[in-house]
Amino acid sequence: METQGTKISRRGRPPKRFDEQSDTREMLLRAGVRVLTEKGFCATGIDEILRGVGIPKGSFYHYFNSKEAFGAELIDRYGAYFARKLQHHFDDASLPHLERLKAFVSDACAGMAKYGYMRGCLIGNLGQEMGALPPSYGDRLKSVFMDWQERVAVCLFAAQEAGEISVNIDCERQAAFFWIGWEGAVLRAKLERHPAALSIFSEVFFAGLNSR
Amino acid sequence: METQGTKISRRGRPPKRFDEQSDTREMLLRAGVRVLTEKGFCATGIDEILRGVGIPKGSFYHYFNSKEAFGAELIDRYGAYFARKLQHHFDDASLPHLERLKAFVSDACAGMAKYGYMRGCLIGNLGQEMGALPPSYGDRLKSVFMDWQERVAVCLFAAQEAGEISVNIDCERQAAFFWIGWEGAVLRAKLERHPAALSIFSEVFFAGLNSR
Repeated sequence: METQGTKISRRGRPPKRFDEQSDTREMLLRAGVRVLTEKGFCATGIDEILRGVGIPKGSFYHYFNSKEAFGAELIDRYGAYFARKLQHHFDDASLPHLERLKAFVSDACAGMAKYGYMRGCLIGNLGQEMGALPPSYGDRLKSVFMDWQERVAVCLFAAQEAGEISVNIDCERQAAFFWIGWEGAVLRAKLERHPAALSIFSEVFFAGLNSR
Repeated sequence: METQGTKISRRGRPPKRFDEQSDTREMLLRAGVRVLTEKGFCATGIDEILRGVGIPKGSFYHYFNSKEAFGAELIDRYGAYFARKLQHHFDDASLPHLERLKAFVSDACAGMAKYGYMRGCLIGNLGQEMGALPPSYGDRLKSVFMDWQERVAVCLFAAQEAGEISVNIDCERQAAFFWIGWEGAVLRAKLERHPAALSIFSEVFFAGLNSR
């Protein structure tokens, strides 16, 4: 294939050229996150992503083997980005544990506000579209949710150990409940272009933790 | 337009012919619900819907002005179908009010199980895709959620009046919370092809109502 040939011919170029390549790859991934959080996978053509970053059509396959491989990398990247964001808040020793989860929620709300509630969650968007996606994405998406959920569960266990929430609370179950509902809230905030659903979900969720 | 011409030429045909027309229209709408609950709007071509019901491509525009008009009718139809389903349970005087909402939840879970958790909520699916949909769908989808939410709120108020739940509960807020989270649960059940998310959401939701 032409793209393979191009790839091979570029080997051995000076480091600057290599930087340009990785910059272009990075630009494509950023553009991918933008369109997948706004519109999902099915409505998004590679053409649109390339147009957004001003890269000729033939170049895409120089950086990624297929649209499927590109999407898989976007899922992993987005999953890791939010895992770091969660952990950043959960490691903040200046706050009680439950406040750390609230800080993550505020951060995520600010993220949605920044883009006028036009961008949702890439994992939720793709989860919704699974009926039309490559089957391999199913396990990737589930793994991301499990990872995020496990981090929230650890935070809730710590809050419980510190006496911030009742010992009667099933932390694993509440962490699962949190992600189920939060994805629903993000979906609704995006539909309404408004943060009300995020506030309602988080307020009722935290009130529930304190009332038991 | 040709389709207009065809429409006019069919006027005055005997009732049987008219029945066939409305049967075909009905078949198209049913096929539309199936593919939109499985895959959403963007991944669904009119061709696929037509293939599913064995109707030639040119015929679609005999029944609907456009894919947008078809989608709008599917939203309204799906919204009305679940409004009737909710009301059917809420009017069941043989059960306490809160049990009526639980009966709806069981009914909806059975509906997902029936299709192997392949079909989600048409309104949730389209809400997720709003970034790529005709802008006119936004208000339609929001209206459906508001209608469903109001019916749940009325059920919760009745439960409160009957002393089934605490007077401290904000029924409007809990009804909004229910739909936010329930859509997240449906999304997750579809991704996982498994009912766990539906059980977790509903159990924690109802436990929350009883603990206040």
